[in-house]
Amino acid sequence: MIKAGVIGATGYAGQELVRILYNHPEVEIKVLSSKNHNNQVYESIYKNFNKICELKCEENELEALSNQLDIIFLSLPHGVTSKLLTDTILKNVKVVDLSADYRLKSEELYEYWYKIKHDNKDLLNQAIYGLSEWKKKEISKSRLIANPGCYPTCALLSLLPLIKEGILEEDNIIIDAKSGVSGAGRSLNLTTHFSECNESVKAYNVTSHRHTPEIEQELSEINGNEISVTFTPHLVPMNRGILCTSYGNLKNSNSYDEIKQIYEKYYQNELFIRLAKKGVFPETKWVKGSNYCDIGFTLNKSASKIIVIGAIDNLVKGAAGQAVQNMNLMFNLEENMGLKSVPMFPV
Amino acid sequence: MIKAGVIGATGYAGQELVRILYNHPEVEIKVLSSKNHNNQVYESIYKNFNKICELKCEENELEALSNQLDIIFLSLPHGVTSKLLTDTILKNVKVVDLSADYRLKSEELYEYWYKIKHDNKDLLNQAIYGLSEWKKKEISKSRLIANPGCYPTCALLSLLPLIKEGILEEDNIIIDAKSGVSGAGRSLNLTTHFSECNESVKAYNVTSHRHTPEIEQELSEINGNEISVTFTPHLVPMNRGILCTSYGNLKNSNSYDEIKQIYEKYYQNELFIRLAKKGVFPETKWVKGSNYCDIGFTLNKSASKIIVIGAIDNLVKGAAGQAVQNMNLMFNLEENMGLKSVPMFPV
Amino acid sequence: MIKAGVIGATGYAGQELVRILYNHPEVEIKVLSSKNHNNQVYESIYKNFNKICELKCEENELEALSNQLDIIFLSLPHGVTSKLLTDTILKNVKVVDLSADYRLKSEELYEYWYKIKHDNKDLLNQAIYGLSEWKKKEISKSRLIANPGCYPTCALLSLLPLIKEGILEEDNIIIDAKSGVSGAGRSLNLTTHFSECNESVKAYNVTSHRHTPEIEQELSEINGNEISVTFTPHLVPMNRGILCTSYGNLKNSNSYDEIKQIYEKYYQNELFIRLAKKGVFPETKWVKGSNYCDIGFTLNKSASKIIVIGAIDNLVKGAAGQAVQNMNLMFNLEENMGLKSVPMFPV
Amino acid sequence: MIKAGVIGATGYAGQELVRILYNHPEVEIKVLSSKNHNNQVYESIYKNFNKICELKCEENELEALSNQLDIIFLSLPHGVTSKLLTDTILKNVKVVDLSADYRLKSEELYEYWYKIKHDNKDLLNQAIYGLSEWKKKEISKSRLIANPGCYPTCALLSLLPLIKEGILEEDNIIIDAKSGVSGAGRSLNLTTHFSECNESVKAYNVTSHRHTPEIEQELSEINGNEISVTFTPHLVPMNRGILCTSYGNLKNSNSYDEIKQIYEKYYQNELFIRLAKKGVFPETKWVKGSNYCDIGFTLNKSASKIIVIGAIDNLVKGAAGQAVQNMNLMFNLEENMGLKSVPMFPV
Repeated sequence: MIKAGVIGATGYAGQELVRILYNHPEVEIKVLSSKNHNNQVYESIYKNFNKICELKCEENELEALSNQLDIIFLSLPHGVTSKLLTDTILKNVKVVDLSADYRLKSEELYEYWYKIKHDNKDLLNQAIYGLSEWKKKEISKSRLIANPGCYPTCALLSLLPLIKEGILEEDNIIIDAKSGVSGAGRSLNLTTHFSECNESVKAYNVTSHRHTPEIEQELSEINGNEISVTFTPHLVPMNRGILCTSYGNLKNSNSYDEIKQIYEKYYQNELFIRLAKKGVFPETKWVKGSNYCDIGFTLNKSASKIIVIGAIDNLVKGAAGQAVQNMNLMFNLEENMGLKSVPMFPV
Repeated sequence: MIKAGVIGATGYAGQELVRILYNHPEVEIKVLSSKNHNNQVYESIYKNFNKICELKCEENELEALSNQLDIIFLSLPHGVTSKLLTDTILKNVKVVDLSADYRLKSEELYEYWYKIKHDNKDLLNQAIYGLSEWKKKEISKSRLIANPGCYPTCALLSLLPLIKEGILEEDNIIIDAKSGVSGAGRSLNLTTHFSECNESVKAYNVTSHRHTPEIEQELSEINGNEISVTFTPHLVPMNRGILCTSYGNLKNSNSYDEIKQIYEKYYQNELFIRLAKKGVFPETKWVKGSNYCDIGFTLNKSASKIIVIGAIDNLVKGAAGQAVQNMNLMFNLEENMGLKSVPMFPV
Repeated sequence: MIKAGVIGATGYAGQELVRILYNHPEVEIKVLSSKNHNNQVYESIYKNFNKICELKCEENELEALSNQLDIIFLSLPHGVTSKLLTDTILKNVKVVDLSADYRLKSEELYEYWYKIKHDNKDLLNQAIYGLSEWKKKEISKSRLIANPGCYPTCALLSLLPLIKEGILEEDNIIIDAKSGVSGAGRSLNLTTHFSECNESVKAYNVTSHRHTPEIEQELSEINGNEISVTFTPHLVPMNRGILCTSYGNLKNSNSYDEIKQIYEKYYQNELFIRLAKKGVFPETKWVKGSNYCDIGFTLNKSASKIIVIGAIDNLVKGAAGQAVQNMNLMFNLEENMGLKSVPMFPV
Repeated sequence: MIKAGVIGATGYAGQELVRILYNHPEVEIKVLSSKNHNNQVYESIYKNFNKICELKCEENELEALSNQLDIIFLSLPHGVTSKLLTDTILKNVKVVDLSADYRLKSEELYEYWYKIKHDNKDLLNQAIYGLSEWKKKEISKSRLIANPGCYPTCALLSLLPLIKEGILEEDNIIIDAKSGVSGAGRSLNLTTHFSECNESVKAYNVTSHRHTPEIEQELSEINGNEISVTFTPHLVPMNRGILCTSYGNLKNSNSYDEIKQIYEKYYQNELFIRLAKKGVFPETKWVKGSNYCDIGFTLNKSASKIIVIGAIDNLVKGAAGQAVQNMNLMFNLEENMGLKSVPMFPV
């Protein structure tokens, strides 16, 4: 059994990790840690774990932990793990970091977007951006995974096949994303106060969301050229789910079937990517509670523009599920072990 | 492997059954059947099953099916299975019926409440009311289970320990129940049209809901005396969940601890019943997607009245989950096999 | 024009007051005050007022204000107005207090339930409990109105005719209430964090909600005897609305028509009470944005129990609307002036 | 008083019209008509009108009605009014048609998108597209208004100033729209069944929504050149509201202030357009129940792209409210008469 610890176990992503790991046949959770709930029994914080998890949240020194565990999931606020991790820790234990600290390869970009100095240049270079479907080999050999953000996961999985094949104009990519409210976490905020966000829809962080550089970095890496995108996240009154509606201009007027073949080339054998039939478009409800990313697309009448629609569960494929998928890859387990449950509906 | 069929697989309860059975280690689904979706691939009806279930819905003759299967789940409208089932079928296969047809022991009551004649008196006598926690032995020996209604499951589990111990006045029991909208099924109706029920709460079928006689029958059977209840169901704008707030008058002013001991006597070792700590009350969110029934209670200041609150997921413990629990009992499997996933939150 | 001030204008009830007063033909809002938003323009706090209200929130000394205004609405947290109000103020200006400070006639009860000492016994005696339909004369002569709580308004309007006529057993009254989340106000709290309360229903403050003594006081006053109730509030995932399902035992088995006549006797000519037809039950959606209280009832089969269902908009009839209705009565205006808009649907 | 009739009074837009007209000081509703609810009292169909509207729905011959009324609002399904209207009717009465029948100037386009032959070429030429802010003079002189669709209203008000000034590339306009469910009307449909659309977001009619040609027609007319847009509507789990996120490429890199001046030039004096401050973006909650359209915009870092966000209440500015605004213009009343209520929040 793989001995696992979840540091930052009481945010929504942390809790989802604990939920998924509990049903993983090869994992035993040994340590749960939470700064805000130190010394509290986990089931008193999340009552869904009543009669299931009797662990207490403890505060632990990471290096000490690394000697007792096989894998540590870090689900902490941005700016923390870049200070916490050391080479020694990584020698002892594999790490999946769900924060943004090791996602951006450029320290300058990181500091510009997160307003925090990054003190861990070396580890930054070692870290693999854990978009599972696109980095399997690198992930399987890595000891430090920077688990992708929720929006980037959905946007990148939607667009990468087109970008890889170079069929899109590089300067006209628009990603209009819609997210459920759990993406904003458990911290209290007027924006996520029920009466303020229920029954309303709004855009936020227009042109200024921190997931923008992450999307651009990965698109550019695959493409070779610099790609900059217009990314507009929206808040939708529902608990879970992200829908990305992405727009691109085709360099040449490809046919529907040509593009379908591109998607199949990259995703046909992927366990967690489901391509929609022609004329069918993903809805967030069909992936809820699962690690799937559903993708569908269409062309406009003049076939100069493509509209791609992707859907994920932001807490699963957009966070905890992909983290477990990455762990499976790192430990050479079946990629979907512990992630086989059917999406729940209606919920 | 147990070979299973789900007849009526495209209603919400049927679909939930398929979902749960897919993750059951000892079950293989062999047949899905649906009158309205005959010949359609299951994943085209419920897109959460995309890439998971490639079965087609077929219309099948029940007797023929009974030769090929080990268990049949019937998730059909009321009034159908009382005509469909035969002794021959039951000799071949075990049956869990999720409709109301075999729940009421009295044909007269059935006909009064459902306005349908019951033609199957013999099987009615054989059928076991499948409230798992209270009928384990009978269920394990039975070939025909009448799976309880969603409201009765929650109300009965909340009240039966008190009724069994005879500590409540028999003529002053009130059950004020609140249900999510999935309980009303997938058939179209103005009541469940989004804009009509979203952002509103209402009572419905006040004093006239068909689950009333079912609750009264089981309370009376355990108690010995005739018990009649006031049962008021309400529709709450959420997908899943039932909360029953039950009120009773204590014959003697029992203390909190005395009553706590009663609940522990009956439920301490039950896998799916979770008793809340003093001062904590169940919420539907903590049981979502699971087979748990959470129960908490308090006394009013004069200790003459008890308020018991129970919460279940109406599609799991209130329908498909309990059906699988009953199957486990019928086949001598671990009672919680296939039902171990942690409740999902927030969802 | 009546010159009005709203002190505590940036809570939900305060904002609703401002909204209603803006459409009141005889009122001019002169002063808005808010401790948390001092010096901010109102439309920057509530953007629905963009281009409508350019007033700034100011902090004001109440006595000074009382010289410039005709009426002051106090929409402040409990425990504040019992300290703020003075005889001098009340000589200058009429006051409607939306807090609980002047509702309970007994200082002991107030201190028991609110854990605050009440220093204003004299004014407590002068204050009129402003349940408009039941205290019209007193309200019209009063200078200090204790505006009722949201739950008490709905529960009392539902039950008072029966209590006044003495047809209910006094010790078996149960009020099972369901409220939208706006009732919990704009202050941040895990309970009202979107992902925590959306898609779930729960009871809270079971047997310990502060509105209990308020309901009991008014029922007892009308009845003559001490009445104690079992009151269970529930939180429902919707923005607005309260539904009270009240249960009572009839001393004698009255007929439906007898009870209908009782309701008509008290409410037939009331502008804001709408009695439902037989077999129809109120839903919160039909009163949204209006000052109506809809009431329906039925009897159980043995006619020993009555179930009464009442519905209000918690922010209108349960707070700001009733406050304006009381103002209308105090100034001898038409009772429904400024309160005539049709309930909005679907919303 | 203006004598008004609403034909098709029992759809959501029709009902909203009745609600608004009830509070209009210069209008008296004389006739309500509904094919599906003929002979039923209005308050039995929409219980918010209980004690308010005692009119019966009658089926009436339009020509006969035209002699008794000053204005007729037609809120009927597409394809009906193109057959119903005659010159005689229009000589007798003014008409606001909320269907699509008179919106598209080209019969071919109409027939292509609606699959119905248009038999009323003459009236089509007379009809004015009633986007109030942009056609005031024409509306005030017209007897037949084609009231705009909900999406086109929001998209056009957002984009027209930029199009009129010619600062956008004509072939790269993308409108990503999000609508509440009431936009789909009261007819039953699996898509709008509560459990199917609650807690999910999806795109629908991607590249094939009928509002596309309407948007293109009006943009092209103002611009002079043919403009074609990519329009993607999404369904959001809320009752009311439309948010349009529109993307355009600037021909020259205008500054924020230049564009701000353009918006002010066209909208500064408009009663129902509210321009958001820099950095603030509209949310549907701030316009609910009102006729406002809120507009905000920003530029991306390279200032080559503009993102404009517009918000309306789909049933008010997107249907019934704009219809009343148009009536006000047609009768030379104050433009906002009957439309002055403050947006309701939280609701």
